Amino acid sequence: MRARDLASEFPTVKRETLAIEAARLLAGQDLPGLIVVDDEGLPSKVLPGTQVLRMAVPGYCQDDPVLARVIDESEADLFLRELGERTVGDGLDEADRELPVVDGEATVLEIASVMAASRSPLVAVVEDGRMLGAISLDALLDRVLDLG
Amino acid sequence: MRARDLASEFPTVKRETLAIEAARLLAGQDLPGLIVVDDEGLPSKVLPGTQVLRMAVPGYCQDDPVLARVIDESEADLFLRELGERTVGDGLDEADRELPVVDGEATVLEIASVMAASRSPLVAVVEDGRMLGAISLDALLDRVLDLG
Repeated sequence: MRARDLASEFPTVKRETLAIEAARLLAGQDLPGLIVVDDEGLPSKVLPGTQVLRMAVPGYCQDDPVLARVIDESEADLFLRELGERTVGDGLDEADRELPVVDGEATVLEIASVMAASRSPLVAVVEDGRMLGAISLDALLDRVLDLG
Repeated sequence: MRARDLASEFPTVKRETLAIEAARLLAGQDLPGLIVVDDEGLPSKVLPGTQVLRMAVPGYCQDDPVLARVIDESEADLFLRELGERTVGDGLDEADRELPVVDGEATVLEIASVMAASRSPLVAVVEDGRMLGAISLDALLDRVLDLG
């Protein structure tokens, strides 16, 4: 089994995508993060879901989460409004995590090696200058356990 | 909305659980990791999915994933066999990531603050000395976007 057989379509965002839009994509599906693509549609970075929260949650709450309780419950529920017009690119400037990439020929062991070394539960598959899709840790384990 | 309303049941493992069993749990569901509980059933650590791979993938492949290609495809597909009798505890000795915990009273903003500060897409909810369950980033965003 090779990477090109395992790659599946994966929602992508661009640097200019609104952060609230990224939050909606993350909520709709159980994703470990979002793939950020450049103007050619090639994967550049990964935006971890927690990074979207880091954009929305006030700094003093991140320093000491118990302080979040001074905000009353109904207001607290609406904290994502703080994202305002911020974009995915605004979040990336802080985190800047590279998304690992394999080519279509990569074997299951190579994909696993890349995930293990980078500690990334997601890798993109690129062949002939275009992204075929991505492989998540779950998808990899699903297939491998079927075979084992 | 409070943590106790958001907590949902979450598969847990113990230090003595076999790593291959952990891999099966991870494959069956889209989980960001597994909660490791102590003998009292209280959350202690989180085992990231990539840590299970780190136990199975040979060190030389992690150092240079392209070397994985020297293993032929049919053998590569079976790499999880390397887990053998290794346990979750064997993987934890390396990673040792704390699982963030909130109490049942925590508001949505407090939960988000804890996830943002720890960069963990998973928090456990503990009340009166027992674990009520856990909250994933997806679950949090699902509920918050519904309200927003």
